[in-house]
Amino acid sequence: MPAKPPLKNDRLIRALLHQPTDTTPVWIMRQAGRYLPEYREIRKQAGDFLTLCKNKELACEVTLQPLRRFDLDGAILFSDILTIPDAMGLGLYFAEGEGPRFERPLRSEADIKALGVPDPADSLRYVTDAVSLIRQELDGSVPLIGFSGSPWTLSTYMVEGGSSKEYRHIKGMMYQNPAALHQLLQKLTESVTSYLNAQIEAGAQAVMIFDTWGGVLTPATYRDFSLQYMEQIVAGLKREHEGQIIPVTLFTKGGGQWLEVMADTGCNALGLDWTIDIDEARRRVGDRVALQGNLDPCVLYADPDTIRVKAQDIITRFGNHSGHVFNLGHGIHQTVNPNHLGVLVDAVHEFGFEIRK
Amino acid sequence: MPAKPPLKNDRLIRALLHQPTDTTPVWIMRQAGRYLPEYREIRKQAGDFLTLCKNKELACEVTLQPLRRFDLDGAILFSDILTIPDAMGLGLYFAEGEGPRFERPLRSEADIKALGVPDPADSLRYVTDAVSLIRQELDGSVPLIGFSGSPWTLSTYMVEGGSSKEYRHIKGMMYQNPAALHQLLQKLTESVTSYLNAQIEAGAQAVMIFDTWGGVLTPATYRDFSLQYMEQIVAGLKREHEGQIIPVTLFTKGGGQWLEVMADTGCNALGLDWTIDIDEARRRVGDRVALQGNLDPCVLYADPDTIRVKAQDIITRFGNHSGHVFNLGHGIHQTVNPNHLGVLVDAVHEFGFEIRK
Repeated sequence: MPAKPPLKNDRLIRALLHQPTDTTPVWIMRQAGRYLPEYREIRKQAGDFLTLCKNKELACEVTLQPLRRFDLDGAILFSDILTIPDAMGLGLYFAEGEGPRFERPLRSEADIKALGVPDPADSLRYVTDAVSLIRQELDGSVPLIGFSGSPWTLSTYMVEGGSSKEYRHIKGMMYQNPAALHQLLQKLTESVTSYLNAQIEAGAQAVMIFDTWGGVLTPATYRDFSLQYMEQIVAGLKREHEGQIIPVTLFTKGGGQWLEVMADTGCNALGLDWTIDIDEARRRVGDRVALQGNLDPCVLYADPDTIRVKAQDIITRFGNHSGHVFNLGHGIHQTVNPNHLGVLVDAVHEFGFEIRK
Repeated sequence: MPAKPPLKNDRLIRALLHQPTDTTPVWIMRQAGRYLPEYREIRKQAGDFLTLCKNKELACEVTLQPLRRFDLDGAILFSDILTIPDAMGLGLYFAEGEGPRFERPLRSEADIKALGVPDPADSLRYVTDAVSLIRQELDGSVPLIGFSGSPWTLSTYMVEGGSSKEYRHIKGMMYQNPAALHQLLQKLTESVTSYLNAQIEAGAQAVMIFDTWGGVLTPATYRDFSLQYMEQIVAGLKREHEGQIIPVTLFTKGGGQWLEVMADTGCNALGLDWTIDIDEARRRVGDRVALQGNLDPCVLYADPDTIRVKAQDIITRFGNHSGHVFNLGHGIHQTVNPNHLGVLVDAVHEFGFEIRK
């Protein structure tokens, strides 16, 4: 394999590692997504969402699209968080307008016992192939972020059979038969670890674990059923590859109350949603971890002047310190005007330079 | 009007007022609801949900149903949180399996300007009539709790036209035209205040404000667009009626990060969801307010022994102090086995007596 070119823009990696940068780096959750007309075009060509995820050329193309429009400091692999349960044989599909569903949800301990841990070199090969191709196409311009869902978050979909409001089945299992759920989470932990390591070997220069539904737990069940497994994953990841340190970011949506314990997992950075002020978060975790966030995605529905004011507020709150990656507090909404994202990205860099003067 | 009989069981009122009680009082959000077969029977008779809310005899009957089964320390008016927007003329309806919808959502400043503040003696008369009847039927057995949605929560439904995941329209308005939204919230504040006062005059012995969607805000927008209006309402309520103090409870779901400012509104008690430990909450608010909560509703899917353990955990965490009302952290789910609620209610009283020894 030819040596990979050095990074031309390493702000994102430096900020995640709490090293100084010239300005605040920015990338956006779901930056490759439906708010972009060019994405919708490719999506139409692909026919359906899963076909798009599983075709490395198309996945690479949509990963690169937002970088052509905006001065973003990172690319994120275009994929779905449910690739692992799909590889475990649960039969992922997307019902129009309904979000992800599984044909064969897990409802019993027997279902869980029967579950195998997929070899990423086999049934998840399409993901690592996409990573290699994207990394090649990026040609060192910005780093590529790999990702996975957290074991808890994956298990909610696997047990509920799709999205949920009440988490009846998974929490029923958690309270009634915790041992069965721990078995499932342990298998997922092994799988997420090997999956993220395969992404790192294929070229991901940073990885992020999305714990989208950790915030529906109690403090104690969060620690037992979500956090401890993320901690195991962090401990099992290759933190260095080809001489470069690979930063790891944990993001529990709705996890603002638990930042201290999250910072103790050994990760490099924490994602923040918008329900906590970033200065308050920084006070609580100190310099132990970098922070990523935390603009309310709905600010992008406002006019450019308001978007700039809100971006500046977050940068000012964080202050002239290392360790901030600007992002939204959740994925960008599909009905946002793409030009507004351009305004945001430029404002972050402008105010990021300014505060460092 | 004949004098109303004194309360035989005043534990709930005493706990809300931070006075000592013999055991921990308990009531359950949505205790009159679909998990009860006798409720489903009446609901079928009524035809649809709104007809049930608007018929005082039926509303009274379903309010009383859970009290016949369980040793609850309070009754809560059976009604909907969207009665005010309905009385404002937005055309509330319930699409099967879809939750509440409005025929005429508010989308412009002109829509908001045109909105009148309903006189509770007129278009909300069916609610106060139900309150009077329930109070009469309760005959002093336990106190009756009245309630309203918070201005912010009502406005989310009114602007979105129903339930929402992204809060695109309301937050778009909040960031783009905050003055328009403040106008709406001010009208709702006046309306909620007069509505709750009318419930108090009709016989409600405690009132609760449900801020179901306050948790989707940032700390600053929570204070500006939700909390300040609840504070105005608290200041405008009749806090004494017929010689009795009327306690006021605020509940912001997902508001665990903001308990201190909530406690500063002048309310008597705060509702807690399950994402914060009640001992931690108590440490943060001290004795300024009572606390109501905070069991994860999904615990009721577990076996009776587990339910007892989880109830005891919350009572132990709160400790031998006054000012705790046991409740779930959100409404009881419709698929719960009613017998499990009986186990919970009895366990709360048992462990509540024990801890006071």
